[in-house]
Amino acid sequence: MVGGRISRLSVRDVRFPTSLGGHGSDAMVSADSRVPSDWSFSCLSPVVLSTLSDVMVRFQIAHVCVVWVGTFSLQHTDPDYSVAYVVLETDAEDGLRGHGITFTLGKGTEVVVCAVNALAHHVLNKDLEDIVGDFRGFYRQLTSDGQLRWIGPEKGVVHLATAAILNAVWDLWAKQEGKPLWKLLVDMDARTLLSCIDFRYITDVLTEEEAYEILQRGQVGKKEREEQMLTHGYPAYTTSCAWLGYSDDTLKQLCTEALEGGWTRFKVKVGADLQDDIRRCQLIRNMIGPEKTLMMDANQRWDVPEAVEWMAKLAEFKPLWIEEPTSPDDILGHATISKCHNRVMFKQLLQAKALQFLQIDSCRLGSVNENLSVLLMAKKFEIPVCPHAGGVGLCELVQHLILFDFISVSASLTNRMCEYVDHLHEHFTYPVTIKNASYMPPKEAGYSTEMKEESVKKHQYPDGEIWKKLLTAQGN
Amino acid sequence: MVGGRISRLSVRDVRFPTSLGGHGSDAMVSADSRVPSDWSFSCLSPVVLSTLSDVMVRFQIAHVCVVWVGTFSLQHTDPDYSVAYVVLETDAEDGLRGHGITFTLGKGTEVVVCAVNALAHHVLNKDLEDIVGDFRGFYRQLTSDGQLRWIGPEKGVVHLATAAILNAVWDLWAKQEGKPLWKLLVDMDARTLLSCIDFRYITDVLTEEEAYEILQRGQVGKKEREEQMLTHGYPAYTTSCAWLGYSDDTLKQLCTEALEGGWTRFKVKVGADLQDDIRRCQLIRNMIGPEKTLMMDANQRWDVPEAVEWMAKLAEFKPLWIEEPTSPDDILGHATISKCHNRVMFKQLLQAKALQFLQIDSCRLGSVNENLSVLLMAKKFEIPVCPHAGGVGLCELVQHLILFDFISVSASLTNRMCEYVDHLHEHFTYPVTIKNASYMPPKEAGYSTEMKEESVKKHQYPDGEIWKKLLTAQGN
Repeated sequence: MVGGRISRLSVRDVRFPTSLGGHGSDAMVSADSRVPSDWSFSCLSPVVLSTLSDVMVRFQIAHVCVVWVGTFSLQHTDPDYSVAYVVLETDAEDGLRGHGITFTLGKGTEVVVCAVNALAHHVLNKDLEDIVGDFRGFYRQLTSDGQLRWIGPEKGVVHLATAAILNAVWDLWAKQEGKPLWKLLVDMDARTLLSCIDFRYITDVLTEEEAYEILQRGQVGKKEREEQMLTHGYPAYTTSCAWLGYSDDTLKQLCTEALEGGWTRFKVKVGADLQDDIRRCQLIRNMIGPEKTLMMDANQRWDVPEAVEWMAKLAEFKPLWIEEPTSPDDILGHATISKCHNRVMFKQLLQAKALQFLQIDSCRLGSVNENLSVLLMAKKFEIPVCPHAGGVGLCELVQHLILFDFISVSASLTNRMCEYVDHLHEHFTYPVTIKNASYMPPKEAGYSTEMKEESVKKHQYPDGEIWKKLLTAQGN
Repeated sequence: MVGGRISRLSVRDVRFPTSLGGHGSDAMVSADSRVPSDWSFSCLSPVVLSTLSDVMVRFQIAHVCVVWVGTFSLQHTDPDYSVAYVVLETDAEDGLRGHGITFTLGKGTEVVVCAVNALAHHVLNKDLEDIVGDFRGFYRQLTSDGQLRWIGPEKGVVHLATAAILNAVWDLWAKQEGKPLWKLLVDMDARTLLSCIDFRYITDVLTEEEAYEILQRGQVGKKEREEQMLTHGYPAYTTSCAWLGYSDDTLKQLCTEALEGGWTRFKVKVGADLQDDIRRCQLIRNMIGPEKTLMMDANQRWDVPEAVEWMAKLAEFKPLWIEEPTSPDDILGHATISKCHNRVMFKQLLQAKALQFLQIDSCRLGSVNENLSVLLMAKKFEIPVCPHAGGVGLCELVQHLILFDFISVSASLTNRMCEYVDHLHEHFTYPVTIKNASYMPPKEAGYSTEMKEESVKKHQYPDGEIWKKLLTAQGN
């Protein structure tokens, strides 16, 4: 079914001026803020790995969550939700295109666009059949380019660019097969699926043979689980109610609406001001009652000692998890919460038993390929996967991955749910469908990555209509 | 002494066509190579942390080295040594300029240039006095820009760009003070020096007060150590003899010359082909004799199980260390060798006792500011620092940091040496001076980052004379 040679790659800088409404605001210090002068803390035991765990237990925080890549956690008070938007064209007669995005926060999107262009020669003039026929090799090409690897590797700008390109390749492949991406993965034979994964640097934790056995075991009951998903969908939680920038009134109103809409799981942003956090957590816990699920996200705001102090104070509101109290690179610094950028970081979090939940991201990891390796490692360690979503299009993409995970890998919904944020779906050709607080499996062919051309044109930076107006207004 | 407002920032893409000569070649698979089909290994204990250590002991490898950021280890067979070259101008009458570089491998330099431009607004129109007067705050501004942080944070392209800008700021500051950078640091009072460091995310291992005490202890004998450096210089080792791309004859010739030049410490690149490595290591060990120091660098070529197997075979040549057997992100995967991108990664390597040596890099870490925090942490854990150098200008820059380290922090030369590679120094206004295999302290004001304008013009990509010729030739 797969055919055509990639004849064109275009990439555009598309930004939504979300900073105007306070959506997506969280606790990270704004660039223009000063560093607090009292920014140092008494030092706890260097083996904080156990310290934070102890605090969890002491204050009855049931779980600590490791956010696996992505989330809003790198945000500040002024994000403009954006994407680098890649479109692949082929010389095939079907006229199908591959659409790929990676999510960014406004400024810097042009840097990712520049990196996509730097990587473009790896995909141009290649036959799609050759790419997906040796997808591991192609992945390695993109991530191990002799000269470009230096400015990564497999992290930051270059990895975001890799994700955008590969997301477009997967979209194109699924479209050519006439299937939504999740279904393409579910129907794919195990050996082909594994041939998409680069096992380099993770064979000490997961070999290809082990992964094969996991997929074989996942065959049992697969058809029933697919039916279950088509009928009931995949459970979701909402982050839309409680951004830091919202007033208490807005928070109350959104929370009321969410409860009426059947939502039972809520996430609140914390970390900027302790007294403020206590008031807001109290407010939301009172509204949702003691039984419903509450999660917290500190977006890397704290040092380790500060995290311990703060979390102790918020424990009374019974959070299921607290995401990202500190640096995304700190694996040992907390048996807790980290944000990672590739499978190697994730592997260590599993090895260090540093996580109780795992969040995948569809645009920060190296597309479907790298997410597959993470899903399989999570299964080996029996860690529930609760994907990160929101931003621009992250809900659209990650639903495919979590559906595949349930149907073919984890076979479990225990302690599992997928983040949902009710923003910007209207710009997508095939937006997500939520029913009874669940993601309903998409039926259209592809990876749901395609955006409405009109939206793209309007929001292109800096020449789209929206930005021309805003920048002109700013100039006056 | 400090004055002037930053009135202009220019950044240029400067590339040297080193790929034509095989300089800098190492074991990383080239982008155009295929992934070996037998790329999987039997799985060792998941707790490889101890496994690799055991192997070291068993095979009498004295030490395992953690490369701290940088090195040639991300290279392949085709690096074009390059820099993003930043020049800062002020409105002060002294006419002094700040020059800053970050090192890259050719392709992708334009992405770093793009990121420098994205960060430029943080430095433009600022008074130098305000910048260095609250250098911690300024560092935090650059690394925590509300929107740009997403595409890092503190890693990859954005961090390289941050380094280039901050290196230029330090050069300017030192020039205004009329001192070489190492002397500026050595003479700086402890509180001012510490106010340059962002302690965020490392306070669980090093507080500002602990750092202060380290610096106070470093006062003892400082003057004598400065004299010692001015007379004898800082010990160096050479990597110029044994790149993977060199023939045995070239290797022999360069090694003979190096021995005649008084060199006693040598590093060899390994990891592409075991039999080839054995032959080359045998050759070089025979030439230098059993007493001189030999180090090896595998440049991330291996998975953990493969590293164990390979290192066992090379142990007979008595390497002092083997750099980077596997992924730069893998802290737990080997109690061994990793390449990191910021102080948070480094902190964990110290906590995990995963290193016996430490290599700093002047262009991958966030300039002098972040290197200071790493030097202080290394002192706390009593880990010898052996800087990475080579590339373009890395020798010129890092000599300042290691001189400061010896004079004011470590006060020791035991097991310490600084890498030296004899390439591309001729393009710098103030190139390094090597005497008796030692770095002689630079005397000119600044950070030795200034390049000859003629070299820059000639090598600008793609419009400089050199590249115009090469690209035209390629076109034909």
